[in-house]
Amino acid sequence: MTKELHFNGFEMNTPSHINHGLWRHPENNRHRYTELSYWTETAKLLERGLFDAIFLADVVGTYDVYDGSRDPAIIRGLQTPNNDPFLLVPAMAAVTENLGFAVTFTTTYEQPFPNARRFSTLDHLTGGRVAWNVVTGYLPDAARNFGLSDQVKHDDRYDLAEEFLEVSYKLWESSWEADAVVRDAAANLYTDPEKIRQIDHEGRFFTVAGPHLSEPSPQRTPVIYQAGASDRGRVFAARHAEAIFVGARTPEQARKVITDVKELAVSLGRRDDDIRFLLGLNVVVAETEAEVKKKLDDILSYRDVVGYLVHFGGGSGIDLSKLGAEEYIEYKARDHVQSMEAAFADKTVQNVVDFYDDPFSDPFFVHGTPDQVADRIEELADSIGLDGFNLVQYLSPGTFEDFVELVVPELQKRGRYRTAYTPNETLRERLFEGRGPLLPERHPGGSLRVGRNAARA
Amino acid sequence: MTKELHFNGFEMNTPSHINHGLWRHPENNRHRYTELSYWTETAKLLERGLFDAIFLADVVGTYDVYDGSRDPAIIRGLQTPNNDPFLLVPAMAAVTENLGFAVTFTTTYEQPFPNARRFSTLDHLTGGRVAWNVVTGYLPDAARNFGLSDQVKHDDRYDLAEEFLEVSYKLWESSWEADAVVRDAAANLYTDPEKIRQIDHEGRFFTVAGPHLSEPSPQRTPVIYQAGASDRGRVFAARHAEAIFVGARTPEQARKVITDVKELAVSLGRRDDDIRFLLGLNVVVAETEAEVKKKLDDILSYRDVVGYLVHFGGGSGIDLSKLGAEEYIEYKARDHVQSMEAAFADKTVQNVVDFYDDPFSDPFFVHGTPDQVADRIEELADSIGLDGFNLVQYLSPGTFEDFVELVVPELQKRGRYRTAYTPNETLRERLFEGRGPLLPERHPGGSLRVGRNAARA
Repeated sequence: MTKELHFNGFEMNTPSHINHGLWRHPENNRHRYTELSYWTETAKLLERGLFDAIFLADVVGTYDVYDGSRDPAIIRGLQTPNNDPFLLVPAMAAVTENLGFAVTFTTTYEQPFPNARRFSTLDHLTGGRVAWNVVTGYLPDAARNFGLSDQVKHDDRYDLAEEFLEVSYKLWESSWEADAVVRDAAANLYTDPEKIRQIDHEGRFFTVAGPHLSEPSPQRTPVIYQAGASDRGRVFAARHAEAIFVGARTPEQARKVITDVKELAVSLGRRDDDIRFLLGLNVVVAETEAEVKKKLDDILSYRDVVGYLVHFGGGSGIDLSKLGAEEYIEYKARDHVQSMEAAFADKTVQNVVDFYDDPFSDPFFVHGTPDQVADRIEELADSIGLDGFNLVQYLSPGTFEDFVELVVPELQKRGRYRTAYTPNETLRERLFEGRGPLLPERHPGGSLRVGRNAARA
Repeated sequence: MTKELHFNGFEMNTPSHINHGLWRHPENNRHRYTELSYWTETAKLLERGLFDAIFLADVVGTYDVYDGSRDPAIIRGLQTPNNDPFLLVPAMAAVTENLGFAVTFTTTYEQPFPNARRFSTLDHLTGGRVAWNVVTGYLPDAARNFGLSDQVKHDDRYDLAEEFLEVSYKLWESSWEADAVVRDAAANLYTDPEKIRQIDHEGRFFTVAGPHLSEPSPQRTPVIYQAGASDRGRVFAARHAEAIFVGARTPEQARKVITDVKELAVSLGRRDDDIRFLLGLNVVVAETEAEVKKKLDDILSYRDVVGYLVHFGGGSGIDLSKLGAEEYIEYKARDHVQSMEAAFADKTVQNVVDFYDDPFSDPFFVHGTPDQVADRIEELADSIGLDGFNLVQYLSPGTFEDFVELVVPELQKRGRYRTAYTPNETLRERLFEGRGPLLPERHPGGSLRVGRNAARA
């Protein structure tokens, strides 16, 4: 089975995103994250490489679990300082024609009404190239920035997220009919008032009257990305997600997530091909094996293992600095996300530290010549049943450059990578060829659509 | 006294902003407001014309007072549909080097923490070209989109706005010292944790722990714009504003606002030249008087008077469709903003309708040849004591084009308009030459600054 794979460039508006310590590498440009040109150059590079999209992570607090302090994160530029991800998109859209943009926004702290307008605005300005990575937030520290005394409980966060999405879908799909905007100058009629309506939502968490302020954008609802890996998170993802960023440490775990979520999705009335599954991927590539060796030695020498443990602390709530090497991690009893850390269940602290200490122990760390890297990418995709990958950077933009110049041509030769964008397609059409720009009727958002293109008459 | 005047282009992310009915003009491009190219073209035009900034208005509800319905507004594209203003800025910044950006955001409905990060992000990406037009919101309809059963009372809105700004200043000025970001690779030190701190704000409306997520941007606090004209609004403006959009219908009223606010500002410890005063200006200009006549006839024939009355209803809360022609408007008893409508106090409905019916009754409607327009602009500025104007459009971008091509050169000849931008200056330095990019110490925001550049040691 040969199918084209989907690739996103994984980024964040911060100095140190995933690969910690690398900001110190003299060729790294991460300190330029505050400059517009850093983002417009990155967008042009990814578009040259025919990527699906740039995937922008976000957090709205600091990492303060490791050693009971935020200092270890601050010292490392580890996701603090950080800036808003939405505001990068219009600049990148202005210098590209096809690249998509997946923006992370948490449903836990802000109101759905202005968020819906932000995404509609982006979807208009980009001509339908936008996705929303729906997260519920995992940093306890974040809640205290929004007047909440403590982190909302994990399962409550998902109840809240469900209602947040319900309100959002109502605004995007059922407030304005597709043909509400008439623009008939002779009749002095810009919008037909009969074709827009309030949503009058009154729920447990939100009361929103509407109508939506934005007219329907090309995709109406942005493509929904999700990354939840907890039991509750999987049900949420199976119901809503169109693309899932699989959190797993081994191919077996990734396979299981995919099988489980597909089953759940079907049980919820969706099709088993309604969701694309993507995995985080680290790549070091060079023309010859000798160059690969040299590049690996160079890049990996800058890794800061404590940085990875600090990051782990924020996601898991577990302070590895305070536990003995032989202690077992029992994060399931804690009120934090399981997502990226799920794979460490039933492992000792020493095993986790060892994993981060040795990058070669990560099965999704791919290195070699273009041919070797392409082999491994194909093998991972096919054996796991993946639709594609989120490419993580060691060097910005060096990692994307290497991939675009060396790996993309090799994957293209093998029929595993597009050779051109389809002009004027929306991001949803890029992920689901031939299905049109809107959510399908069987999706909880698509089912709410009224008027022309509605699920029901 | 000859001084250079400040000009902003007044815009909004919507089909019909101020001059209603004009969207029907065949040369108008307002229906392109959803397109990125509309905004990048406008930004380049304003930069070519050496404008200070583009001033982006915003509302987060619909105009539903006139005739007790939102339909009259919907029909006219009158500020509905509308899209988010923040998201226009990065695209416009990507195609300009000097133009400033004033973004309207209301303090009434959302949290200060994410707003502070949005402005810091914009200030970083634009290299310090950003202003925040602080509004408290005037559409009752808006509150119901944010879970509030009714509009927050007028004076409470200002109490809330005061605290919103206090939280914002703490985040921008006192959470990160200027030299907190070290980027010392050898020492593995990105940020010195000793130089960032929580704000631990606990107030009547907001609880925000911090620290701010963004490192200090060129201006730290964006330039503060304000437009409040009520008694309470004037005190607020006198305390916080660096530029005030004066709401007045006559030169006398404008003069009085300026005198009053300057006096108030001085009584609050600020200097009488700490605030720039700008007035909304409508201009129709052409090379010859015959062309002016033709252009006036053409443009004014598209005005839709009811649109102006609908707009008035949203701002004043007064439904003119329900009142007799002889009735006096008593909006002061109502809980709505007085700003742009203040000038109509003690007038009858008929007088208000007449005012909108006859554009020539507006003393700030300026028309003529370049020479005549420049004369009138100088006269208005000098007789009122204005620092500049917000230029309103009839045709987009035709009005800006005419101004840039015909009026700017005439004002330049007279020494009333810059002939070049000062390279790399921030928007604050453009408004207050030689005073540096940061808020002065005597400003309530500047007084909170800590560390290097601090008000106090």
